[in-house]
Order: sequence, then C-alpha cells, then structure tokens
Amino acid sequence: MPEAPVITVPVPLGDRAYDIFVGRGLLAGAGPRIAALGARAAIIITDENVGPLYADALAEALQRQGLRATTFAVTPGEATKSYASLEKVCDAVLAAKIERGDLVVALGGGVVGDLAGFAAAVVRRGVRFVQVPTTLLAQVDSSVGGKTGINSRYGKNLVGAFHQPSLVLADTALLDTLPIREMRAGYAEVVKYGLIDDARFFDWCEANWRGVFSGGLERDEAVAQSCRAKAAVVVRDEREDGDRALLNLGHTFGHALERITRYDSARLVHGEGVAIGLCLAFRFSVSLGLCPAADAERVEAHLAATGLPTRLSHVPGGCGSVDDLLDAMAQDKKVKGGALTFILARGIGQSFIAPGIAVEKVRSFLASETGEA
Amino acid sequence: MPEAPVITVPVPLGDRAYDIFVGRGLLAGAGPRIAALGARAAIIITDENVGPLYADALAEALQRQGLRATTFAVTPGEATKSYASLEKVCDAVLAAKIERGDLVVALGGGVVGDLAGFAAAVVRRGVRFVQVPTTLLAQVDSSVGGKTGINSRYGKNLVGAFHQPSLVLADTALLDTLPIREMRAGYAEVVKYGLIDDARFFDWCEANWRGVFSGGLERDEAVAQSCRAKAAVVVRDEREDGDRALLNLGHTFGHALERITRYDSARLVHGEGVAIGLCLAFRFSVSLGLCPAADAERVEAHLAATGLPTRLSHVPGGCGSVDDLLDAMAQDKKVKGGALTFILARGIGQSFIAPGIAVEKVRSFLASETGEA
Repeated sequence: MPEAPVITVPVPLGDRAYDIFVGRGLLAGAGPRIAALGARAAIIITDENVGPLYADALAEALQRQGLRATTFAVTPGEATKSYASLEKVCDAVLAAKIERGDLVVALGGGVVGDLAGFAAAVVRRGVRFVQVPTTLLAQVDSSVGGKTGINSRYGKNLVGAFHQPSLVLADTALLDTLPIREMRAGYAEVVKYGLIDDARFFDWCEANWRGVFSGGLERDEAVAQSCRAKAAVVVRDEREDGDRALLNLGHTFGHALERITRYDSARLVHGEGVAIGLCLAFRFSVSLGLCPAADAERVEAHLAATGLPTRLSHVPGGCGSVDDLLDAMAQDKKVKGGALTFILARGIGQSFIAPGIAVEKVRSFLASETGEA
Repeated sequence: MPEAPVITVPVPLGDRAYDIFVGRGLLAGAGPRIAALGARAAIIITDENVGPLYADALAEALQRQGLRATTFAVTPGEATKSYASLEKVCDAVLAAKIERGDLVVALGGGVVGDLAGFAAAVVRRGVRFVQVPTTLLAQVDSSVGGKTGINSRYGKNLVGAFHQPSLVLADTALLDTLPIREMRAGYAEVVKYGLIDDARFFDWCEANWRGVFSGGLERDEAVAQSCRAKAAVVVRDEREDGDRALLNLGHTFGHALERITRYDSARLVHGEGVAIGLCLAFRFSVSLGLCPAADAERVEAHLAATGLPTRLSHVPGGCGSVDDLLDAMAQDKKVKGGALTFILARGIGQSFIAPGIAVEKVRSFLASETGEA
C-alpha cells in the first residue's frame, strides 16, 4: 500500500532542529526514516498495551535497516512516570548498550514519551531519541517541544529535562483504534491552539471536527497545524521563560481539577480537565470584563458538541469547594513569587499571560461557577 | 579577618557563563557572592561529615542576605550517588519550594556536587546551582565543567546531565583539614592538567607541590590553574563530542582499577587510580614508540614523590590478571563503536586522543606491567 501524503512540520531549533512527520500509515515506513538518523542501535520503549500491537513490527523494520533493535515495555498508566520506572528504563537502555549516537524510540502515549524522553536525556548525559506518539494527545502536545519528565510526590512533571527529539513520527492511522474518550481528550488540546492565537484555526475546528474524529485528511491537518502552533511557541521560548506559558491556557484550572480528582482517570483525564479549564479561562476573562461573553459561549458550545465536559459540575464525583479548588491551584508549579498567574483571553485567538491575579477575584469567580456565591 | 586575595577564573560559556572564585576563607564571604545571583531562596545540599562543620554558618550567611535558606544532608560516600538519593534530594528541593530562579548550593566533595547538581538539573527541568567544593578533587575537577550525575548498576556516572553551575566558590582553607590521602588523590588531577597540554605547569608542580599540600599561595594558584585548564577544554567542547576526552588522560586505566577494586575506597580512591593510570598512559605511550622514556620516568617520579601510587603492584589486594583489566576497560563508557580509545602522549604536555587502539597492543603492554609476559 503506498504511503498517504505526509505533512512535514519543521521545528527550527538551531542545532537541535528536527522534523515532525504527520500522515496515515507512517509507522510502516518508519524504518528508513529512523535509520536516516545514522544510529547503530535503537531501543524501543513502549507500554504493555501498545507494545503487542506495534513494537515487533517496528523493531523488525529497524533491523532490516541494519540497526540493532530491542524493545522494553513498561506498565501503562500515569503511575509509571515514577523514579522507579526511570531507573528501570535507564537500566534497559544501558543493558541494550545504547551509546551516545544511538537512539531511544518512544512508542506510545504521553506517559511513554515523557518517561522514555527523560531516560534518553540522562543516560550517558543524553542520547538521541525519536517520538512515535500513538495517541492524539501525544501527537499534538507531549511529543512536541522537548519537555520530558516524571511525577514527584509534590506534583506532576516536577522532575525532568528539556530534551528535544531528533524526529517525531505521528501516524494518524494509529488513532483509528483509540477510545473515543481519549480522542476527545486530545482534541481539547487541538482546540486550545486556536484559542491561544489563531481564531481562523478555531473556525476551522468548528467546521471540520467530525473529520478529525473520523480519520479523514482533516485529522492529519489538525495534527499538523497543532504541531506547527506548538513548535512556533517552543522556538520562541524553548525553556519556558516567557511565551511558552501561553500553552498553559486552560491548564491552571485543569491541573487543579486533576489534583482534586486525584489523577483518577476513571473520573477525569488530562484533556477533560483542559476542556473545562478552557471554558473557565474564557468565562473568568468575561467576568473580569476582558472578553466578550459570546466568545466564551462559542468555546463552550464547540467543546460540548464534541462530547467534552465544560463545567465544574461535569466532574464525576464533584470538584470540591471553592477553597479546595484554590488550594489545588496554589500548589501548581506555575505559581511564581507567590502570586497566581493565569492565561486569560480578550477573545478567541487573543490569549495572554496575566501574572499577579488576586486570589479574591479567582474566589468570587469560582463561587459563581460552583453556586457557592 | 580580611579576605585573602581571590583569584577569579571565568568560564565563558555564552549564556551559561559563570565565574570560579578561588581563595582562602571564601566561605566566610559566601553570603554576598551567592546573594548577588538574585535568588529568593536556596537549599544547601551537603553530607553528614561536611554539614556539621560549615552548613549552619553558610545558611545563616544566606539568611542575612535575605534569602530563605535550608539544609539537607546526605550520607557521605560514593554509594550516595544513587537513584534513591536522587529522589530524596529532589524531594528536599521541592519541599523547600525552590523555584526556577532559586538555588541549589552543593557544599561538599564530588559526590555531593554530582548528586546535588543532577537534582538541580532535573527539578522543575532545571534550577540554578552553586558549587562550594570542599575537597581538592572537587575544587580542581568535579565542580568545574557541568558534568553531574549518579551511578548505575552498569557503571559510574552513567546517568546524569550537563548542567553548568552559576557560580563556584573554592575556599582553599577548607583543605587544611582534608586527610592527606584525599589531598594526594586530588593532586593527581592537578598534575594531569600539566601532562595534557601544559609542560610549564608540570614543571611548576615539580617545584611547588609542597606548597600546594601545606596550604600556601601555591595551593590557590594550583587550584586556579587547574580550573583554567579544565574550563578551556570545556569551553571548546562542553558536551564531550571531541576534545573534552583529553581530560580522561589516565582515566581509562584508572577507571578499570576502580572497577576491579569494586570502588572500595579502603583499597583505592579515584585519584589514586588516576595516578597509576597517568603513569600507565605514559609508559604505554613509550611502549608504542610515541613518547621518550625519560618523560614517563619524570611523571612517575613526581607522583611518587607526593606519596601517590604509580604501578599496578601498588594496588592493595592486587589488580587482577591482564584479562581482568581488559574486561574492566571494555566496560568503560569511553568505548565507541567497540574500539578502545586511549589518551596517549608524545611527551609531557603533549597528550592526544588515540581512538581504535588494538586490544592486543594493550594486552602485551599490560602483560609487561604485571609480569605475566
């Protein structure tokens, strides 16, 4: 079967520049693309769900290109982003005799990408790595931009490294078998890019989201456009000293909800928290007199149309009190110098970083949302 | 007491540039120097030997400058460079609410510097750190150049990061109480810099080593010159893609000896392995017809004069057979593409990287050294 059209998204980060390839069926042609990086060996890090489906074929494809290739599978799930797993993966990479010029290939969702990327960043103080993201969330968000890491008892992603991949292969056909809930969760991040600074892309999402979900060319375009948007921000601010914080639109609220639901994916997954968080960020902006109410309503209507939650009352089991929410927000690593920093919006595609937001304003907004007011 | 003269060694690494200050009594003035970096908080990572001597005074000095300062002490010894300790130190840094602009201060020898530096590299994907090295080895080697890390079951320093400090304070008065064996071990690295590319510095060492050991101005000069030499190499090749390998002069043999003695410091410490390794590298160079025998004899005579071991027979408990040595060398991470890379010398101050050295040549040289020939 001939490979479908492939979209190339360059990430021009100087001597850390790389390409993201997006297209249906890319995995089948992964061997030559990865071999072109010039390594002698590769280890595929995957999980026990994804591994049985794709890892053997990928390893064989690499072996046909003359690479020594082995596979190591971790337990699926967020709990795997731990120090213990990091040690296991590093041991596996060292046992596979991966040297500086060789490759760690992350085959899986965000957990696998973050963990394998972090291991690649620290084994021998840095070996190269390739991302083969297998979820929509990983394809449009976590596989792009070089953030890797594990969770700490003090919070998610608090220990890690900036380590750019050498190549990202986003095979959109892999999403055909993704559960609808995971598809929606990833889609919340797609919409986010339109909301940040691209009103036309949000228009496009409203018109084309069904094709993204069903697997038409719209899906490839949505993934590619998301990668372009994220890459543009990352190129401006690789280490999150400034602009990159825009990518946190919806995340201050979203992370608080994840924390309150104790990262229990039965109740809430990251993208669902982001969907609610996006709606809250827009409604908070409206309540501060910054944003037309019509824009917040459009955001909510679109996310709701795809089946995503949009309100605090949509959190299964409840979201706690206003004080619970404020406490959870105060623990966020985006707190700088004690003040709360939000990403707010003057309208769709007009988001901005708003540091020093007074806690009382957040409190009264949340009270109106929860009905405590 | 007025501060003695301070020597400043700049490390011009672009946006990661920093200064190394060398002088007697620097610790007493550390508060203002560290505060000048502009942080709001600092955590001092030390060990249970060094901490009781200096940590409280340093924390108070930082507090007088308006920084929030806390201390965390780890168990002394190489076994502390572990995943478990990394997690403990990262937890301590997060518990101290160290944010991106804040500081981790490593107060101790190489173990503390490597571990605390690695934690600083990965907490929040990188916070700043300051090195306050308290051993000669740390002052002239491990605190300079940004290599941080822990040990793996597959070998030493196999997991880590390149993370440059923001400041290094080398208080040479702290060495007054250093055990003579540790002093000698650090001195082997001082001599190494002369042997690599600075014959005049080696001459200076031969003439002035007693002052280095006794704590005169010669000590400050030896530390500063070592830092200058290391910084020059690091600036040329920060991530060890090339020239930085010169710093491994004596280390391929030295690491093999450490491995064979199972990192048992009662038998051999790193600097002693390096001392023997330097002599072996020179004698190997002589045996390959590269180097005048007189130079190798001068190297051995100088190291022996300071009380350092210079021969395989000096390893307490023995160094194993030639095959044991070759096996231990083959595990070194400096193996690239299967071939052995050595740092050899055409004479004192004329070292060079020699990749692809045939194992048989190493074998026959070692056989002549062990008497197996």
